[in-house]
This record gives sequence, C-alpha cells and structure tokens, in this order.
Amino acid sequence: MILDRNKIDDMPQRYRANLINSLSGFKSANLIGTTNTKGQHNLSIVSSVVHFGANPPIMGFVMRPNSVPRDSLDNILETKHFSINQVSADFWQQAHQTAARYPKDISEFEQTELTAELLSNFPAPFVAQSMVKIGLTLLEIIDIKANGTKLILGEIDMLDIDTTVLREDGYLDIESIDAVAISGLDSYHVTHRLSRLSYAKPDQTISQLTIDGKPI
Amino acid sequence: MILDRNKIDDMPQRYRANLINSLSGFKSANLIGTTNTKGQHNLSIVSSVVHFGANPPIMGFVMRPNSVPRDSLDNILETKHFSINQVSADFWQQAHQTAARYPKDISEFEQTELTAELLSNFPAPFVAQSMVKIGLTLLEIIDIKANGTKLILGEIDMLDIDTTVLREDGYLDIESIDAVAISGLDSYHVTHRLSRLSYAKPDQTISQLTIDGKPI
Repeated sequence: MILDRNKIDDMPQRYRANLINSLSGFKSANLIGTTNTKGQHNLSIVSSVVHFGANPPIMGFVMRPNSVPRDSLDNILETKHFSINQVSADFWQQAHQTAARYPKDISEFEQTELTAELLSNFPAPFVAQSMVKIGLTLLEIIDIKANGTKLILGEIDMLDIDTTVLREDGYLDIESIDAVAISGLDSYHVTHRLSRLSYAKPDQTISQLTIDGKPI
Repeated sequence: MILDRNKIDDMPQRYRANLINSLSGFKSANLIGTTNTKGQHNLSIVSSVVHFGANPPIMGFVMRPNSVPRDSLDNILETKHFSINQVSADFWQQAHQTAARYPKDISEFEQTELTAELLSNFPAPFVAQSMVKIGLTLLEIIDIKANGTKLILGEIDMLDIDTTVLREDGYLDIESIDAVAISGLDSYHVTHRLSRLSYAKPDQTISQLTIDGKPI
C-alpha cells in the first residue's frame, strides 16, 4: 500500500503519530535521570537514545521541547549532567508511567516507585532497578530547525553494569536481563536472539558467532 | 561493576566498541537505499535511525564519515533523496552483509541478492524484500563537532507498507513481520510483545491495550 505525503498530512493527528512513530523499527527504552540545583529529581522515559561514537564515548537523545521531558531539559541545562538507564521487563510499566505530565515539583521516582540511586558522587540520579546505568556530561544541545526538537548529546563519564551482562569481548547481553524494545508510541517487547554475526567483508560469507563473539 | 572514564579509555579498541555500542539498548535495523546521478545504486545497513517528528514527518540517522556508508552520503548529497527500508528476519544476514567495504562501483543489492525496487518515480531505490519502505528528501545534514559524525535528517515523501502490518489506529505491528532489532554491533533479535500500554496520566493506573490500541 503506497501512501504519498498528501495522504500522510491528511491523517488524523493521533493516527499519524502512531504510524510515523512506528516507521523507524524497534527502539531502545531508557529512563533519563536528572536533578536540579535544589536536588529535585526528575525521571523520564525516552525511546530515542542513539549511539554517536565509542572513542570518545558519546550518546544522544531527541527531545520535543513541548513534551513531558521539558523538566529534564531544564535540569540538564542547570546541572550539565544526566543519566541514561536501560529499561528491563522487571519495571517496564513503571518506566512507561514516567511519561505522565506530573507537576514540576513531583518526582517521577516517587510516583512510580522506582528508586533514585546516587553513585560515585555523580550529580544526576540513577535508577537502582536498572542493570545498565550510564552517567553523562552534557556536550551539546543541537536545535533541529525543521520542527523545534532538540538533540541532547552527552559524553560518558561512568558506567554501572550488572556483571552478569558483560561478555568477554565487551558485548552486553542485554537480552539476558530482559531489556525491552519499544515499537510505535506504546508497545513493549522482549527479544529472542537470532545470532551474533561475523564482521562483514566482501567475497566472504558471514557466519554466526557465539554470545562471546567467537566462531561457532 | 562501576567503570569510570579512565577505565573506558584504557580498553582495547574493539572491546570498547562492543561495549559502548551496547549501551543504548535495542536498535532498529534499516537499510539505506541511495543512487547517484549515473544510476549506480548503493545499500547500507544502519542501526541509528531515529524518529524526529510526525508532523511534518521527519526521520534521521547517524553516519560516521570514514565508515562504509560514505558512498551513501555522497549519493544523498548528489541526489537529495534516500530510502529507509526495515529489515526483517527473512533477510537479516543479507542486510548485515551490506556493511562490507565494497568498491564504490559495486552495488550491494547485487552482492547480497536483495532486489532494488523503483516506486512512484521516487529517485532512490527501495528494497523489494522489505515490508516497510520509506522515501525521504534530504532536509539537513548536521555535523557533530565532538567526533565528526553526521546526522542526516530527511522529510518523508512516501511510504510503501505491507497492508498486513497496519493496525486500525495507525500503529504498525512490525513484530508480525519479524522485524529485527540489533544490540551491540552484530547481534540480531526478533521480538515477543509484552503489550501495548495506555497513555500515561498522573493519578491513573496504566492498562494494557490490544494490538489495535483498544482497552482489553
């Protein structure tokens, strides 16, 4: 079924939001932890966290200024730090609930019974329940002129990773901790691994690898 | 296990790449289809496609200038158009193979036996095997100063979607077509839905929804 731009523009708003948010494929589920200078914590689920580079280690996420994470953005501007916490099936519904529009002085941690954890004097709170926690310093905020969204880039300061997740070549087996993927605006999924694959080279057939990245 | 920045910087390059690429959680798997003015097609897998907005419909992806998709970037600059094609379990290994460093005059379509499909006079080729195909016009290329990566933003011109995927509220049930998710650099996964969830509101418990977005 071919849909041209006119058909997309004519769709009811909610229908279009569901469709366009489904197009990119599966998305990561992460909680952004922030605080302000008064120590008022904020927590917000995002599905737009993206890897930007390993050396230096840089990650980013997209924020719509008028949507819920506005408090998060204010806090990031105030303290220059934020945390990214992977969501797993143990607390996926609590993570989804952080998207509700709570007043600014309400902590989503308390409302959702997720636990704020402070680590190694890092300024932003982490989610204790998360098995993969990342502490970042704000690097740059890029304004996307086309629609007023913002890309928040951070450089990684520290990690707190459950040791069971880490494999011997550095790969994190996030499937083993039931990390969830999101599709569309509101669908949550756990995964089943097809395989790891060897590095692709011309004139060479790719092969499946073990979970530790070794030939089978 | 806490890892500070010094420990990350001291890791062997490949180990660090595996680890840092695992941090964001599950990623989408998409093939970027491009062509040059001579009609030489190019196809490249990316795991960084992100939703930027539904109205106007905008998507983006991250590209490392020195990595394989350099030909894709040249083509996008030349023709101002590209396609995004969701990868499903029917052709995940062929999709992975497009990451090999083929010479510029070699088409990854031919090398991987994926079929280039031209639709509605759109300038860039689509992947016939893909059930969710998106045609975009280049909107902006944003240079990320911190590490020389580029964010390619495109505005959606047209979609070609398998009708079985589309649900009545616009949501695409990409799990039903075995769309794959990626973790790390080389691990591929299919999914199992936990549920769709209702819109989160303060002082209201979220509830699970049917695949069509209705209360259960």
